[in-house]
Amino acid sequence: MANVEKIISIAKRRGFVWPSSEIYGGLSGFFDYGPLGFLLKTKIENFWREFFLKEDNIFEIQTCTIMPEKVWEASGHLKDFIDPLTQCKKCNSFFRADDLIQEKTGKVVEGLKPAELTKLLRENGIKCPKCDGELSEVRIFNLMLSTQVSPVKENLAYLRPETAQGIFVNFKNILNATRAKLPFGIAQVGVSYRNEISPRQFLIRLREFRQMEIEYFIHPEKLNDCPNFKKYANTKIRILTREQQEKGEEEAIELTVEEAVKKEILPNKFMAYFLAKEFLWYQMLGIPKEALRFRHMLPKETPHYSKANFDLEIKFDFGWKEVVGNAYRTDYDLKAHMEHSGKGLSIVEDGEKIIPHVIEPSFGVDRTIYAVLLYSFVEDKKRGWDWFKLKPKIAPFLAGVFPLVSKDDLPEKAKEVYEMLKKCYEVFYDETGSIGKRYARSDEIGTPIAITIDYQTLEDDTVTLRNRDDTKQVRVAIKDLVNVLWKILQEEFEF
Amino acid sequence: MANVEKIISIAKRRGFVWPSSEIYGGLSGFFDYGPLGFLLKTKIENFWREFFLKEDNIFEIQTCTIMPEKVWEASGHLKDFIDPLTQCKKCNSFFRADDLIQEKTGKVVEGLKPAELTKLLRENGIKCPKCDGELSEVRIFNLMLSTQVSPVKENLAYLRPETAQGIFVNFKNILNATRAKLPFGIAQVGVSYRNEISPRQFLIRLREFRQMEIEYFIHPEKLNDCPNFKKYANTKIRILTREQQEKGEEEAIELTVEEAVKKEILPNKFMAYFLAKEFLWYQMLGIPKEALRFRHMLPKETPHYSKANFDLEIKFDFGWKEVVGNAYRTDYDLKAHMEHSGKGLSIVEDGEKIIPHVIEPSFGVDRTIYAVLLYSFVEDKKRGWDWFKLKPKIAPFLAGVFPLVSKDDLPEKAKEVYEMLKKCYEVFYDETGSIGKRYARSDEIGTPIAITIDYQTLEDDTVTLRNRDDTKQVRVAIKDLVNVLWKILQEEFEF
Repeated sequence: MANVEKIISIAKRRGFVWPSSEIYGGLSGFFDYGPLGFLLKTKIENFWREFFLKEDNIFEIQTCTIMPEKVWEASGHLKDFIDPLTQCKKCNSFFRADDLIQEKTGKVVEGLKPAELTKLLRENGIKCPKCDGELSEVRIFNLMLSTQVSPVKENLAYLRPETAQGIFVNFKNILNATRAKLPFGIAQVGVSYRNEISPRQFLIRLREFRQMEIEYFIHPEKLNDCPNFKKYANTKIRILTREQQEKGEEEAIELTVEEAVKKEILPNKFMAYFLAKEFLWYQMLGIPKEALRFRHMLPKETPHYSKANFDLEIKFDFGWKEVVGNAYRTDYDLKAHMEHSGKGLSIVEDGEKIIPHVIEPSFGVDRTIYAVLLYSFVEDKKRGWDWFKLKPKIAPFLAGVFPLVSKDDLPEKAKEVYEMLKKCYEVFYDETGSIGKRYARSDEIGTPIAITIDYQTLEDDTVTLRNRDDTKQVRVAIKDLVNVLWKILQEEFEF
Repeated sequence: MANVEKIISIAKRRGFVWPSSEIYGGLSGFFDYGPLGFLLKTKIENFWREFFLKEDNIFEIQTCTIMPEKVWEASGHLKDFIDPLTQCKKCNSFFRADDLIQEKTGKVVEGLKPAELTKLLRENGIKCPKCDGELSEVRIFNLMLSTQVSPVKENLAYLRPETAQGIFVNFKNILNATRAKLPFGIAQVGVSYRNEISPRQFLIRLREFRQMEIEYFIHPEKLNDCPNFKKYANTKIRILTREQQEKGEEEAIELTVEEAVKKEILPNKFMAYFLAKEFLWYQMLGIPKEALRFRHMLPKETPHYSKANFDLEIKFDFGWKEVVGNAYRTDYDLKAHMEHSGKGLSIVEDGEKIIPHVIEPSFGVDRTIYAVLLYSFVEDKKRGWDWFKLKPKIAPFLAGVFPLVSKDDLPEKAKEVYEMLKKCYEVFYDETGSIGKRYARSDEIGTPIAITIDYQTLEDDTVTLRNRDDTKQVRVAIKDLVNVLWKILQEEFEF
């Protein structure tokens, strides 16, 4: 496993991501994306759109991050989106009681009542991890951030803890506008907020984080009529079943999604369809399949709105962690909003009024970026510098353009090449320092290709392409560059 | 001027934009973007990136929307980002005192003290516009939305009222990562929040709104060394000078930005450069130049951080309104953050430590969308339906694909064409209803091209292209479609 401290250091130094408001000591659980991080993030989001939205009938929307109290009352978040909080009576630090118990005993205690958790704290002699002080009784803490809209005191509103509610609340408007028929999806990419008690682990547990969510609406009696299922039926995924977890087994089983549906490990073909695609997509991002698994969440861990949850977990340096939550939300949300708003949120199919069921794949963007950086990091003693083996599709820059030396018209020629490529791809120009140093800087940020303009270029209009992964070089005519880079982007070019 | 009620109605019905959380009665000042609005917005943002960021040395970042109190103390927003509030003693409604006075007297009263405003309310006999009740004394109301991060009561944080502070606070990290030299820019696209006292006018005065901001850092002694100025020096813009405003003149003067700098109407060439580009860009979005002007803000209207402000105003149905704010922020922000954080935020240029000056063009995304919808709206009695003349670059869909009838293999053929085009462009497929109805629906949402697959297609692999603007039709071979659409996108195709 790569050295995470090194990754965090490069991420800051080169402009991927760093703690927010750092010059003021930061704000725990907040990170900002610098120029390279912004490019990486944008490319990952667009690749996600291409792979998950284009193939199916999925509409993307963008709704407000602040929503009124009534929405969260209906969704259940006011009541159920809570963590058990305990405070050190000596140093006043806050902790999640369930985390402390889990760390000490190894047991999953999500879903237990405050009194039960207090009892477990006492029974296991758990003290403050910071100062060994006595811990308070466990109390409930709502994870939503609130704000007061308008000068009127009563208007309490909440920063959304998930983008999903913006989809459910707008369901009727979207349905009217798109005239969509089941099955179809609505997607949203954007920021959400959770007032975590103890943010930690770099980009894992954030208070402001980014999500890519799909709510896929299906006919409640046609849970297996998934139009594109066939295409992925034979995709093998790795699952850690509830049975296995109860036995304490750690090693996921591998099987096709078709088998998983047949064996009733997965609840339906729509769920299976998304799981298959997720398993493939993360591999396309460079995460090896051994580091991917779906964990069927235990009943007590399953969110209040879900009938079944399958977390796509990735093996991080610190252990397995959820990166995508897949929830079978059934008609929970639409029904709740119908009840609370008094508005009809059904859809007419073949003359019949239907309240659709929902499959929700919910991706954590920041966690995905963490995983990508982790698994693409190469500690390279031979080269003398560390670098990221980022896939061409998501690397911040596809290529760097370098004049071999900063004289004899080479910079001018290199700038011409740069200006030409800039129209089609994300590329950068660099003429500072030795060519070796520029290769090192280019590798370090995961740039797949280094294009060097040398003296031969002035004679025959060819340049050298250096492949980041094996440092192999080929000569390519400038007139072919756009096409060759296109092939490299598609991973169809052989060096 | 177009009928705004009609536009708002189409915008909702077809899925551009509608009030947020509408099924719960909405939340004043919040709007959500539906599937078409999301596409329109994304295309406008990307066109902006292409035109404003690519040409210059400008890095884009994405920072958190929540920032700690210290940031806003330093930036001056805690003290100065305020509105004068008055409340009706009878019906309890809130109003901005300056608005009420301006409406009654026609005078700009921004910047006056609460006591002075109270006096003006009384002198002019201004009552509650809703119930004619007596108004309270004017008090100061801070427009930032606050939230409490972590369970600790002291940790007050604020939702950013501008994306700009995320740039200033990260200045050093970005500088280190990019090794940029002056002049260079840092940009951010994202949501900001203002707790407006009385939100109104559709997408104009919102509480959650979207911005596209550039902070362009320049050498304080080289205010006219603007590298690409020449390219736009002869661009004519329209300005309403302070002199004119003092005389009560309404008609802007027209002159080139070069002249405006020479006559000292504009403070420097960097400001002139951005103004020229903005004037061109909004015309490319379809806003006629008569509906565009720059207003030099009067001293009392100028924000606390700015030495000079030029608002790009657009003539809306209700009057002229700011859509882009151009502020000459000088070194106000960097100096303030140096002082408050104790960190160095200077840049070394030629061995000398410099605190750069800043030119800030700050675009309102929602207001831009409002203007675009307003000026592209065509009330068309002849056709029998109204439609949006959206430019190909920003129309949600570039083309619709239609089988002439839903039989005889035409839908299959049409779907083939659709699948091919989908890989390159945003297109939709529609086979429901008569071809006339489908043209109407396609026009209505501003789709430039309707592609029809008919019986001749099955014989010779050609299709008809119908031009939205004049309904002219041409026949094009399927194999040429991708290229022809590309030309249409560039506005280089003649029907």
